[in-house]
Amino acid sequence: MNKEQLIEQIKIKKSFLCIGLDVDLEKIPQHLLQLDDPVFEFNKQIIDATHHLAVAYKPNIAFFEAYGIKGWQALQKTIEYLNDNYPEIFTIADAKRGDIGNTSTRYAKAFFEDLNFDSVTVAPYMGSDSVEPFLAFADKFTILLTLTSNAGGLDFQVLKDENGLTLYEKVLEQSLTWKNSDQLMYVVGATRPEYFQKIRKIVPNHFLLVPGIGAQGGDLQGVCKYGMNDDVGLLINSSRGIIYASNRTDFAEKATEKALELQQEMEAILK
Amino acid sequence: MNKEQLIEQIKIKKSFLCIGLDVDLEKIPQHLLQLDDPVFEFNKQIIDATHHLAVAYKPNIAFFEAYGIKGWQALQKTIEYLNDNYPEIFTIADAKRGDIGNTSTRYAKAFFEDLNFDSVTVAPYMGSDSVEPFLAFADKFTILLTLTSNAGGLDFQVLKDENGLTLYEKVLEQSLTWKNSDQLMYVVGATRPEYFQKIRKIVPNHFLLVPGIGAQGGDLQGVCKYGMNDDVGLLINSSRGIIYASNRTDFAEKATEKALELQQEMEAILK
Repeated sequence: MNKEQLIEQIKIKKSFLCIGLDVDLEKIPQHLLQLDDPVFEFNKQIIDATHHLAVAYKPNIAFFEAYGIKGWQALQKTIEYLNDNYPEIFTIADAKRGDIGNTSTRYAKAFFEDLNFDSVTVAPYMGSDSVEPFLAFADKFTILLTLTSNAGGLDFQVLKDENGLTLYEKVLEQSLTWKNSDQLMYVVGATRPEYFQKIRKIVPNHFLLVPGIGAQGGDLQGVCKYGMNDDVGLLINSSRGIIYASNRTDFAEKATEKALELQQEMEAILK
Repeated sequence: MNKEQLIEQIKIKKSFLCIGLDVDLEKIPQHLLQLDDPVFEFNKQIIDATHHLAVAYKPNIAFFEAYGIKGWQALQKTIEYLNDNYPEIFTIADAKRGDIGNTSTRYAKAFFEDLNFDSVTVAPYMGSDSVEPFLAFADKFTILLTLTSNAGGLDFQVLKDENGLTLYEKVLEQSLTWKNSDQLMYVVGATRPEYFQKIRKIVPNHFLLVPGIGAQGGDLQGVCKYGMNDDVGLLINSSRGIIYASNRTDFAEKATEKALELQQEMEAILK
């Protein structure tokens, strides 16, 4: 999927919602545990119940890896289900990878070719040659960690250099010099609305993936006020607030309700 | 495995060699490709041929993930083979993970519990609460990216703050304040011997995992001169130089020869 197609979907659905699939067997409805692949079955029902309200889904790879081979099978089935049934959906492998060049190429192949995700999240600590191998894949997006929503995000990301520039600003500036930098997006936590203005000065045109709405306490209105651009330019993620709205047999209906609330809030903002 | 046991193994084997398992089907001997699981078979033969010369093995997780479910099966079989046959070996999942707390816990469970590795490499960009979930596992080690061997490692890691402190020094200093920081080790590239003195001033007692010897041009003597401490305190990794010493049927013998060369160089340094 390319950027224009993503923007078109946002306009059609009047939504820039991304739904995070952080599937925990201890939190999903217990009746699903009798099934052969409860993780996939849960994802399938969540996707079927919310796909008209969201433009993106973000499987959190750690939650699949924690279940070993069965987890990878569930991940593979989930992304295949999305690609086969809802090709208009933008898919994000939330993997936070990054390594030296030949190794990053392997991760890129795993997520872009083997699993056929549209995008993957990547950590910037190892610099240009750890990220550029991901950017080498056409029509695929690399979503760089920039300013994260967790408390520890402030440990290093806002350290200032000799010129008063913070690390996350440096990451943004440097990343624009990398090859195929138009295929970058950036992770910016919703818990930090005060930073969005600064970020938009450096990257006015790129999409931002914004986690932290809901369970983590982020503020949708504040993020949109300072983070939105002419293309909307935001994908707002909600995971637990939607997928765990109920842990009973009505979980899919309740997920629809929660997704609809956010979609309607977004539709009002888009007007 | 605890630190004392690792040090004891270094003394017994007169070696602080770590062998990296970066298994690429295009580089391994072609006769193995007829087998059911060529990746595992390659690892098994390399391990059998070198285990007496090395104290640690480091499967590079990207190379397994790139083969999807078959790759995870090969990874699982490799770590089981190591744990069952050579329990004295220190095992490193080179995964470079790191995410918000509940997600990092999932990665930690995947590598420490499900796969039963002794350690995992972790990226520091997201700060304390992205690393502490790994440190919560007793007798397991978290190996933090500090100063990496790739060219892009200098993009952000040596940026100086207002007080002249570089980012990698800040990572070292801060990490010492984290809970269970005695279970930390640090990744420092062999391509940067001039930095080891500075690093040892901040972390005199911790182990350093040092990639970049061989294919990447790092210098063993220089690293040992400045990086070694009273416990040795170094694990020197070589991947391609050993495992791809030959791509014919003699690959295991040639791997033994290359590992022996490094072990003997290490034995001489230890005297």
